Amino acid sequence: MNYRQESLKRHAEWRGKIETKVRVPVDSREALSLAYTPGVAEPCLAIQREPEKSFELTRRWNTVPVITDGTAVLGLGDIGPEAGMPVMEGKCALFKAYGGVDAFPICIKSKDVDEIVNTIKLISGSFGGINLEDISAPRCFEIETRLKNELDIPVFHDDQHGTAIVMAAALINAAKVVNKDVHSLNLVINGAGAAGIAIAKYLLKLGVEDIVMCDRFGVICRGAAGMNAAQAEMAEITNIRGLSGSLADAMRGADVFIGVSAPNVVSKDMVRSMAERAIVFSCANPVSEISREDALDAGAAVVGTGSSEKPNQINNVLVFPGLFRGALDVRAKDINFDMMLAASRGIAECVGDRLSPDFILPYAYDKSAHEAVAKAVAEAAIRSGAARI
Amino acid sequence: MNYRQESLKRHAEWRGKIETKVRVPVDSREALSLAYTPGVAEPCLAIQREPEKSFELTRRWNTVPVITDGTAVLGLGDIGPEAGMPVMEGKCALFKAYGGVDAFPICIKSKDVDEIVNTIKLISGSFGGINLEDISAPRCFEIETRLKNELDIPVFHDDQHGTAIVMAAALINAAKVVNKDVHSLNLVINGAGAAGIAIAKYLLKLGVEDIVMCDRFGVICRGAAGMNAAQAEMAEITNIRGLSGSLADAMRGADVFIGVSAPNVVSKDMVRSMAERAIVFSCANPVSEISREDALDAGAAVVGTGSSEKPNQINNVLVFPGLFRGALDVRAKDINFDMMLAASRGIAECVGDRLSPDFILPYAYDKSAHEAVAKAVAEAAIRSGAARI
Repeated sequence: MNYRQESLKRHAEWRGKIETKVRVPVDSREALSLAYTPGVAEPCLAIQREPEKSFELTRRWNTVPVITDGTAVLGLGDIGPEAGMPVMEGKCALFKAYGGVDAFPICIKSKDVDEIVNTIKLISGSFGGINLEDISAPRCFEIETRLKNELDIPVFHDDQHGTAIVMAAALINAAKVVNKDVHSLNLVINGAGAAGIAIAKYLLKLGVEDIVMCDRFGVICRGAAGMNAAQAEMAEITNIRGLSGSLADAMRGADVFIGVSAPNVVSKDMVRSMAERAIVFSCANPVSEISREDALDAGAAVVGTGSSEKPNQINNVLVFPGLFRGALDVRAKDINFDMMLAASRGIAECVGDRLSPDFILPYAYDKSAHEAVAKAVAEAAIRSGAARI
Repeated sequence: MNYRQESLKRHAEWRGKIETKVRVPVDSREALSLAYTPGVAEPCLAIQREPEKSFELTRRWNTVPVITDGTAVLGLGDIGPEAGMPVMEGKCALFKAYGGVDAFPICIKSKDVDEIVNTIKLISGSFGGINLEDISAPRCFEIETRLKNELDIPVFHDDQHGTAIVMAAALINAAKVVNKDVHSLNLVINGAGAAGIAIAKYLLKLGVEDIVMCDRFGVICRGAAGMNAAQAEMAEITNIRGLSGSLADAMRGADVFIGVSAPNVVSKDMVRSMAERAIVFSCANPVSEISREDALDAGAAVVGTGSSEKPNQINNVLVFPGLFRGALDVRAKDINFDMMLAASRGIAECVGDRLSPDFILPYAYDKSAHEAVAKAVAEAAIRSGAARI
C-alpha cells in the first residue's frame, strides 16, 4: 500500500482523529443544575480555596496537551504550526488508545523561545502534564528546561526523551541478543539534533561510557567548527577516545550505530567496518541511514529501523502513553531519570522469551506493553519522590 | 435538593465532565501507518502547501476552546483561572451534547489584556473558533475586539453576546405575551458590566430606542462619576430622555426591567411603579434582583430569571452550542450581528404555540431548539457574506 496517499484520503474522510465525549448527564433540568449552574459554583469555590483540588474536581488530572510550533515535524522540518496538526492529533489518539490519557493538540504560531515558554506557562493550569512535540533543536532544549523549572507538572519533550527511552530499551535487548555488556559498548550516534543529543545524554546516565557523536560534518569533538551550545556541551561529555574525522572513521570498530539523521548516509562498507555482531539502529524517517536489508547483508547482527513495516521498529509510540499514564496516576510533579529508566526497562522486559534478532521490542500496538510501562513509571515516581499521591 | 453540595459530590465522583475519544483505528501496524507515521506525512504536507486544508484534514473545523482568565466566574467574581475550570468544562459538555462541537477548556493565568490576546492568537491555529468566557469588564471588551480584528475565525464572548441573544429572544416573546411592540418598549437595564452593556448595544441595534442603564450608583448618564470608558460610551448612546437618579427613578413607568446585577436590589414597590403589563427579567445569579414570586405578586405580567428551577429560565445555554454549530458548518470567518439576530429569532420561534406568560423560551435541554439556532445562524452567515463554504 502507498501509505502516504492512502493516509491523505483517509484523513479527508475522517476529518479529525479525536473528538470530545461527554461523561456526565446534561439532558434534564436537574442534570444541568448539577453539571452546570447553579451547582457548579461549589466545585469552583472548592478549587479557589485549594487550587490543587482542580486535579480532583475537573479532568485536569488526566489531560495533556500535545504542543508544537511546527518547526521539526517528522523528517519534514519546519512546515509550520498548522501543518504539524495531523501528527499532533495522531499522537493524541495514541495517548488515549494506549494510555487512557485525554490529550489534545495545540499548535503555537511562534518560533520565539520566550513567547512559546510564556504561552505554555499561561495555559498550564488546565493540564496535568505537558507533552512537547516536534520543536527544533537547539530551541527545544531551552524551552523544555525552562518549563521544567517553572512548572510543577510533568513536562516532557517526546522527540528527545521518548526517543532516548525506546532506543535504550532496544539497546538493552539487542545487547542481550549479541551477548555483549551494555556498559562497555562502543557506540556511534549520527545526528546531533534533539533526538541524538538526548539519546547520548540518556545512555551516558545509563552508564554507557564510549559514545561518539557525529553530525553532517563528522565527529563532534572539542574545537569542531559550527557547533551550537548544546553540541559544544556534547563535545565535552562524549568522545572519551578523542576521535576526530568522518562518520566512517567513527564507525570503524564500533559495536553500535544509532542513526537519527538523514537518508542513505551509511554504506554497506561502513557497516562491514564495525565490530563483530554489530547492532545497527537506522532510524531516519521516512528513509533510513541504511536499509535493513543492506545492513543485514553487510553483516549486522541486529537491525532496527523507524519503519512499521519491518521487524524491530524503534518508535517512541511505545513510550509516551504509558509514561504519562504512570506519571498522571501518581500526580508526579516531574518526569525524572528514574521514571524514564523504569520505562526503558519496562519496555525491554515485555519482550521476555520472545527475544530474538528480529524481535527486540514489543509491537507499538501491544497494550500490555503500555500497561507495563505505566506501572513501572508510577512505581519509580513513588520511589524517587516525584509522586504526590 | 441542595444542588451546590450535591454538585460538589458529583464532581468528585466524575473527575471530569468531558474526555477525548479516538475516532480512527490505531490497533494494528497498518492502522498506525495510516493514522500516524509514515502516512501522516502526506496530510501534513498538504496543509503546508495550503494552510486552509487544516480545516479538512484535522478536527480543527469542529474544535473550539472555552477560554477564561477566571476573573468573572458566574456571580463569584475573580476566583482565579483554575477555579473557573468546572464552569468551562461544563460548557464544553454542553457544546458537545447540544451542538456537536468539540470544545475543551483552557484557563489563562494572566489578567493582562496584551498577554491574554497574544496567548489566544498564538494558539488559534488549532481551532475553528474561539469562545471567551467569564472575563471581567471592561477588559473583556478590548480582548474580544482585538481578537475579532486580528483572527479570521469566529471569536465570541459568551457572557456578552450569548446573554444578549437569549435576552432578546425572551424579550421578543414576552412582548408578544403582553401585546406590546418591541421597538417602542421603555426598558431599564440594571448592571453595566459585560452582560448589561452587550444587552443594551444589541437591543439598540435591534431597534429598541428607549433604554436606560443603571449601575450600583444609579442611572448611567452623561457626566456621571466613576464610569469606565465603556460605560461613558453607553451614557452617550442610551438614556434618550436624559434621566438621572436612582434605579427606582428609572424603573418608574418602565415596560421592561432587565437585571444582570446583584441580589435583592429591586423591591416590590419598584415593580409596582412600572407600566401596566410589565416584564421583569431578574437574572442575577444565584440570587436574583427580585424573586419571581415577589415580582409576580407586585403585578409583573411576565417574569424570567436565571434559575433552572423556575419557569422562563433565561440562560445562554440556549445560544452558544447552536450558534457555533451554525458558524462552524459554513466556516464563518466571524459571528456578526445578522447571525446573532438569527439566533435570537430562532430561539423565539421555537416556542411556537406553546407561548404563554410562563413559557417564553424553549428549555435549555431541548435539542430541537439548538438545531433551529444552528440552521438559522448558518443561513444568516451565508446571506451576510460571513460564510466561506
